[in-house]
Amino acid sequence: MSDTTAFCDAAARLLGPKGFTTDPELVDPWLTDWRGRYTGRAIGLASPASTAETAELVRLCAKHGVPIVPQGGNSGMSGGATPDESGDAVLISLRRMDKITSLDPEAMQVTCEAGVILQNLHEAAEKHRLRFPLTLGGKGSATIGGLISTNAGGTQVLRHGTMRAQVLGIEAVLADGSVLDTLTPLKKDNRGFDLKQLLIGSEGILGIVTGATLRLLPEISGRTVIWAGLASIRQARELLVHCERVAGEALEGFEVLPNHCLAAVLDHLPDARAPLAQPHAWNALIELVSTKPSGEDLASLAETMLEGALDLGLLEDAVIAANETQAEAFWLLRDSISPAERAIGPAMQHDISVPVKRMADFVTAAIPEVEKRFPETRALAFGHLGDGNVHFHVLAPAGVTPGRWEDSEGKQISSFVHDLVTEWGGSISAEHGIGQMKRDELGRLGDPAALAVLRSVKQALDPRGLLNPGKLLPLAQSGTNP
Amino acid sequence: MSDTTAFCDAAARLLGPKGFTTDPELVDPWLTDWRGRYTGRAIGLASPASTAETAELVRLCAKHGVPIVPQGGNSGMSGGATPDESGDAVLISLRRMDKITSLDPEAMQVTCEAGVILQNLHEAAEKHRLRFPLTLGGKGSATIGGLISTNAGGTQVLRHGTMRAQVLGIEAVLADGSVLDTLTPLKKDNRGFDLKQLLIGSEGILGIVTGATLRLLPEISGRTVIWAGLASIRQARELLVHCERVAGEALEGFEVLPNHCLAAVLDHLPDARAPLAQPHAWNALIELVSTKPSGEDLASLAETMLEGALDLGLLEDAVIAANETQAEAFWLLRDSISPAERAIGPAMQHDISVPVKRMADFVTAAIPEVEKRFPETRALAFGHLGDGNVHFHVLAPAGVTPGRWEDSEGKQISSFVHDLVTEWGGSISAEHGIGQMKRDELGRLGDPAALAVLRSVKQALDPRGLLNPGKLLPLAQSGTNP
Repeated sequence: MSDTTAFCDAAARLLGPKGFTTDPELVDPWLTDWRGRYTGRAIGLASPASTAETAELVRLCAKHGVPIVPQGGNSGMSGGATPDESGDAVLISLRRMDKITSLDPEAMQVTCEAGVILQNLHEAAEKHRLRFPLTLGGKGSATIGGLISTNAGGTQVLRHGTMRAQVLGIEAVLADGSVLDTLTPLKKDNRGFDLKQLLIGSEGILGIVTGATLRLLPEISGRTVIWAGLASIRQARELLVHCERVAGEALEGFEVLPNHCLAAVLDHLPDARAPLAQPHAWNALIELVSTKPSGEDLASLAETMLEGALDLGLLEDAVIAANETQAEAFWLLRDSISPAERAIGPAMQHDISVPVKRMADFVTAAIPEVEKRFPETRALAFGHLGDGNVHFHVLAPAGVTPGRWEDSEGKQISSFVHDLVTEWGGSISAEHGIGQMKRDELGRLGDPAALAVLRSVKQALDPRGLLNPGKLLPLAQSGTNP
Repeated sequence: MSDTTAFCDAAARLLGPKGFTTDPELVDPWLTDWRGRYTGRAIGLASPASTAETAELVRLCAKHGVPIVPQGGNSGMSGGATPDESGDAVLISLRRMDKITSLDPEAMQVTCEAGVILQNLHEAAEKHRLRFPLTLGGKGSATIGGLISTNAGGTQVLRHGTMRAQVLGIEAVLADGSVLDTLTPLKKDNRGFDLKQLLIGSEGILGIVTGATLRLLPEISGRTVIWAGLASIRQARELLVHCERVAGEALEGFEVLPNHCLAAVLDHLPDARAPLAQPHAWNALIELVSTKPSGEDLASLAETMLEGALDLGLLEDAVIAANETQAEAFWLLRDSISPAERAIGPAMQHDISVPVKRMADFVTAAIPEVEKRFPETRALAFGHLGDGNVHFHVLAPAGVTPGRWEDSEGKQISSFVHDLVTEWGGSISAEHGIGQMKRDELGRLGDPAALAVLRSVKQALDPRGLLNPGKLLPLAQSGTNP
């Protein structure tokens, strides 16, 4: 009996028929990431039902030397949950662990298993007139464990931070099968550095997140959504600073998109219409919210804010959504940029950040630089200006062969963009993580001192390199020590 | 020439006369912690003027095998910045590195060296109509580096979090003398797990914090301070939940103190008077703030909140400070608990947390348990109820010998309290850290899986154990590997 067979038999005994399968029909759908960029192979698909089963499985993997690829909703953007092509690894799905263990409305905390889907968490909170202040496009499939492992962002980061800011406690299985349990919802705990931070954003290379305690916030009692037309992204930056000053804590979102993105969305959505009468070079989508049950006069706050902006010459035109339907319609325009763009043709997408203050200058400088260096491409940026994070996309010249273009000119474009970002003191991954997509670029461009710490900690916590090999760390290949 | 002499000569050459001394008159004041609990010895006092000098000094220490004790304002509560009695270590003061490198009012960020004193940071922010949202009693001496290394708390944690929540970037010198620089103020950066988190709260055992980028917030445009009289700490907890619901983001502080503490303070401060006509078993000090330049009607919010609380039977009496002078007077009562208590006699002080929801029950149960087990002591709790963190103090029986009592019955009391806290799922250090004071208790009561991770990471980043030996980690003694 080969060792692989022995491992599979033992895993099947441990987890039962619901918990372990090698059936290609059941395994194959999870071997390709949702964008279809990466496809790997695996010994089998393990779906433990509990933390204890996960821990036993990890001990079994350690015994047999089987690498582990943890997976949540398989909605990641960087191939971090897709196994490599060796077929050596076992895929561990956390999706069966989908229980909300407890929700304490008074403490405004929820404890849940790693496989809980974000949308379900939102709904559970809403039942208690609370909200979980992080959302993103993949909320119908993204799991809490995956969101933690990738330190996910979204459109509410400006006000509420990334996933890191929501996590109060973590339960994780470590490489040796021990369970690190910091689920106890202590608001303050200074017994050494904060261990849970090691698991947040580490993409499964230091442990498998099996549960979490998360903060909740009071539900919003009202929101006001504004669409503003702007002359430039520099003006957008000035408008943002003005809005932060006037609206303070009420400012929940500030997204920007160029006219080109809006036009593409309007082409893509037949029923959509432009919020403003005239096109503007740039658009800002601004959201104000109130959490006070009495409500605040958000409409008058919005008017004060916009009048001040007009007086200061910080916008060309603006409209306040008349009702919730119109507010939703404004957000739909923002949320449809990616599908609209995909309908146009291939594009290289870069999830980048630079210091907030430099973002407008970066975008203004980088777009013509990229378009000059790669003729007939079209560069555009949209997204979370307030976080210094834009999605910097470069659309392929007309007529290229999809698939082939990405691997040739597309790769050169990405290197060029990453070089630019690094020169500007920025990050090649603002919110999507490194995964396998940007691993080599991190090795090429990362700070050697930072990489050395990442590798030391990885070596300390997973000396055999069995946890999600080939992800994140440039030298942490499958089967070799980092 | 002994190796110590060789090290001292080399350090003096590197740092110059301002940067290195072995003169007892200059060194001795820093060898005892400010509470006078711990006294150690040191080879000398190094005061580098820059990160580069710090890095060179660390390399020199590595070369000579000299342990390093980093120190900021020497205002820590757990002896974490005091060397041991061996005299092997060099004390590295960061106090000369006291520059505010840059303050960006638009980005609401400040970058500064580790030796900047908290009070000075407050004042720098105020000049730009901004504020740094963390404060504590030692603000006149505590440094940014020390506050980061201990993940300091204070009275604004309820609303703004501990030091961890304020830190956007860190610069630190690691054990090999390399410099980890994450000062670049990127709001979003997902290139692996967040390295700066390793330095926050690690008490100098993983690296020496030399600089930081911190968030600032808009200045407050107004505040309303309330003093409420309550029948019990359980009622205080219910009142807190009510206030969070009604005031939402405007609720900035919620401190509690029993009548005994208030009476001691009134005895101690001859000019102070009780805010309410009658004594109440418990008192709550509540602060609402507004950051909107237009101001909010905080007074009417406070009235709505208190009327609702009265209707629900959540308080016995309450008064809203009529003006800023009265507001300051209310806070002075809270801030004078410790000096008032010290004037009474010896006490064992425990900085503990339990889950927020259980705090009222814990205090109600623990006080009689301690007083029964240790006759003639008096137990009391006060502080940050909203954070699940109270300072649980046990006052000595009358007539004991100060100094001797702490080392005998006092130690037994602390073990008893720590056992209780652990049974209740709490932490033996909520905000003051472990240092040398609680190191052995952490070893006795800490979760073995958590301790194993702490030790592995320490071993990975400081394999020779030269960084702040004997602090935090139960087995990381000077000169031996953990």
